[in-house]
Amino acid sequence: MGIAGITGRLGALCADEARSASDITLTGGLARVADPGRAIVTDPGVLAAGCDVLLDVSSADAVEAVAEAAMKAGCALVTGTTGLGPAQEAALRRASGVIPVVRAANFSPALNLMLLAAKMLAGRLPGFDAEIVETHHRQKRDAPSGTALAIGEAVATGRGVRLADVMQVDRNRVRAEGEIGFASLRAGQIVGEHQLSFTDAFEQITLGHRAFDRRLFARGALLAVRWAAGRSPGLYGMEDVVGGGFPD
Amino acid sequence: MGIAGITGRLGALCADEARSASDITLTGGLARVADPGRAIVTDPGVLAAGCDVLLDVSSADAVEAVAEAAMKAGCALVTGTTGLGPAQEAALRRASGVIPVVRAANFSPALNLMLLAAKMLAGRLPGFDAEIVETHHRQKRDAPSGTALAIGEAVATGRGVRLADVMQVDRNRVRAEGEIGFASLRAGQIVGEHQLSFTDAFEQITLGHRAFDRRLFARGALLAVRWAAGRSPGLYGMEDVVGGGFPD
Amino acid sequence: MGIAGITGRLGALCADEARSASDITLTGGLARVADPGRAIVTDPGVLAAGCDVLLDVSSADAVEAVAEAAMKAGCALVTGTTGLGPAQEAALRRASGVIPVVRAANFSPALNLMLLAAKMLAGRLPGFDAEIVETHHRQKRDAPSGTALAIGEAVATGRGVRLADVMQVDRNRVRAEGEIGFASLRAGQIVGEHQLSFTDAFEQITLGHRAFDRRLFARGALLAVRWAAGRSPGLYGMEDVVGGGFPD
Amino acid sequence: MGIAGITGRLGALCADEARSASDITLTGGLARVADPGRAIVTDPGVLAAGCDVLLDVSSADAVEAVAEAAMKAGCALVTGTTGLGPAQEAALRRASGVIPVVRAANFSPALNLMLLAAKMLAGRLPGFDAEIVETHHRQKRDAPSGTALAIGEAVATGRGVRLADVMQVDRNRVRAEGEIGFASLRAGQIVGEHQLSFTDAFEQITLGHRAFDRRLFARGALLAVRWAAGRSPGLYGMEDVVGGGFPD
Repeated sequence: MGIAGITGRLGALCADEARSASDITLTGGLARVADPGRAIVTDPGVLAAGCDVLLDVSSADAVEAVAEAAMKAGCALVTGTTGLGPAQEAALRRASGVIPVVRAANFSPALNLMLLAAKMLAGRLPGFDAEIVETHHRQKRDAPSGTALAIGEAVATGRGVRLADVMQVDRNRVRAEGEIGFASLRAGQIVGEHQLSFTDAFEQITLGHRAFDRRLFARGALLAVRWAAGRSPGLYGMEDVVGGGFPD
Repeated sequence: MGIAGITGRLGALCADEARSASDITLTGGLARVADPGRAIVTDPGVLAAGCDVLLDVSSADAVEAVAEAAMKAGCALVTGTTGLGPAQEAALRRASGVIPVVRAANFSPALNLMLLAAKMLAGRLPGFDAEIVETHHRQKRDAPSGTALAIGEAVATGRGVRLADVMQVDRNRVRAEGEIGFASLRAGQIVGEHQLSFTDAFEQITLGHRAFDRRLFARGALLAVRWAAGRSPGLYGMEDVVGGGFPD
Repeated sequence: MGIAGITGRLGALCADEARSASDITLTGGLARVADPGRAIVTDPGVLAAGCDVLLDVSSADAVEAVAEAAMKAGCALVTGTTGLGPAQEAALRRASGVIPVVRAANFSPALNLMLLAAKMLAGRLPGFDAEIVETHHRQKRDAPSGTALAIGEAVATGRGVRLADVMQVDRNRVRAEGEIGFASLRAGQIVGEHQLSFTDAFEQITLGHRAFDRRLFARGALLAVRWAAGRSPGLYGMEDVVGGGFPD
Repeated sequence: MGIAGITGRLGALCADEARSASDITLTGGLARVADPGRAIVTDPGVLAAGCDVLLDVSSADAVEAVAEAAMKAGCALVTGTTGLGPAQEAALRRASGVIPVVRAANFSPALNLMLLAAKMLAGRLPGFDAEIVETHHRQKRDAPSGTALAIGEAVATGRGVRLADVMQVDRNRVRAEGEIGFASLRAGQIVGEHQLSFTDAFEQITLGHRAFDRRLFARGALLAVRWAAGRSPGLYGMEDVVGGGFPD
């Protein structure tokens, strides 16, 4: 396995996990500055040539070059980059015709199962009020969190609507039918907590997730790497890695 | 619709809901003492003859006679009785060859979805510690609650084990691999709260349910009644009513 | 006891509770329209003349007349009106020189204890991040709830700051030192849930409150009525009714 | 400051914290095996002679010798040892006539404030059902946790009863008046979570605590050390360190 973005925070955690995993060999990394002593190169083609799976935790602007390199080398691609533009999306789709490509907005196994369950519940509890609360450390600059938005997307998809049409953060008003509410808390050094609730007048069901340790994302990335190795070409998601989708 | 057990607590709530539902006609009820003024009879055959769906919220010892009556009359049967013995189970299976039979340990729609989600998560998070906590009103005599046990069964089924082999209520010991823990709280007049968590060293996912109002069970029973009317013969569960099962 | 505002939602609940309490006699009520059959009058002086405690759950604009009537009649005054202006505040202070006056923004006994605990914790955990979350039914028009603001006031008081200077509802920014965050959820028919958390990098303490049933506010009002009867003149709060304040 | 029990898990954390605190000088430690290179001795008299505060995080059987050494040297004593017998209790009381002695079952500042709040709430909500739930890592051997028992003691003290008379872990029975319920969960590597709830038919108030990181106990111990230095002789608790007790 090679890691694009190996000097980033998640990249470094992934490298640590890979070194302590007996079934994975870390062949090298990609970064803006080469470091031959640690097998860090600046050319994605060189990295891709030496590995069976390329794990990409770099940034959106590197995605096209990384995807092309993986496609040419015939190695699987696992990418956790977010905020992709149309050209970058197209590059991943093109690559997925030739090699297996796994895309994940979040590598946590349990969180991806939460997305599956959220979509299922949303579709089967149409009259219930959906509310999402997230809590993160005090340094976080944006709200709602990307994961909270992903949960909202799962709910909207389960109900056959677009999130943008039903998302609500302003509570100075009577709740509209079908609204998905978002609330954000900022406290201490909390890695990430998310809760989704569906409530009607008679009952409430909640789905919650807590991340205790950032290494969980590196461990999830390696799960995706193991799953992708030797897989047929195609565009996959973390939900495939953790067990497959559900009927609508 | 006719109601067997119409004078019990849940039966009375079901009758109230039926009377206020425009699409359901309450034809009568079954009880130990007849009441001609309220169309309450003591013979299940008489009740079954006049309705298209028979809702049975009586007790285990009435199940065989009720099932036979429904089968003879050709009406659908929805039963919420619990604690059935082998002969009573057999009576329901026999009836399901001729009429649609819906069995539900609990008529709450959201709780039945929680059971589906619990089974799914359990199968896909094999190394996580499963723990179940339930809270009920101070008068409750037994623990864990029947619903907590149903959640435990869902987890065990998702993992391909028998609940009896992995259930644990004694915490004066190191946690065993694969154990499903149960804890019970008793407080005030709480109708019913259940939480299931799956935890490993890095993350935790929880599923929670709260019942606010006992009428929810009557409303869920009527959902099952509507769903069962005119259905093909077979043995169904509340999970079918709320949307169908999931792949393993 | 007489009730000003007896035809309002809380007033009617208070009247019901008073009728079923063996130690309280409901002598009559005040409303905009008289109803001699139910001893409802339009003149506060008439109501006050016949009772030892006047419970005022009317509205801010009636406060001055009610306070003056109670003062003249020499009966105790318990008031749950909110949103008072300077003249109305002054009327209560003036009355409290002659009769006992209990003011409560919220009559829930446990919630008032939560305010006491919140103030205490805030003063002793100065470096912790304070966050308040409230959940109410879908019809609620404003946010944060009045009770959430009261909790925020308790935290600010405990820290010797003004709530207006530290309150924060916008989370698209790094958390400021000393900020008190507010978040609001709207779901189903939830009567009222509030949670306050204090978090640092190492630990978290939370205080939570749930109202199950609106009658709790009527019951708390009657607690205040019983406590006020025969008390010395002075301006009291619900914290006095539930047990007295704490040292700073 | 010297540390008795410096080679234990908490002792080592305390030494780390002390080394990174600019206002504390670590003069040495006490252990079963001396290590001159790290100023670790086996004689408590030698350790006590060189410090103004002795932090004791060793074990119950060392308490008498440590207390006597501190008393003779005239240095303050902070002890976190638990499970003391009558002779050991007497040794601490004797020492507290000569030097300041701070005893803490748990050094977390917020948890000690939770104990204060628990006692206060218990005394003022006499008709409410008290329930305690604790969650710890899967390796824990005993239940309920020592901290859960301390919370129970605080509730019992607030109500003027003995915990042993009202503690209940068996839920196969109707809840008795005044009972304090305990429930235990074991999951993953959770450092420690505790929740106390008071519930009646109309409302519920909860107090919760989560420990995110074991270093919090070392940090709390150093708070006590700073507080104890130069204090008058007497027997103090962690509640004094975090801000003093409350009126009953």
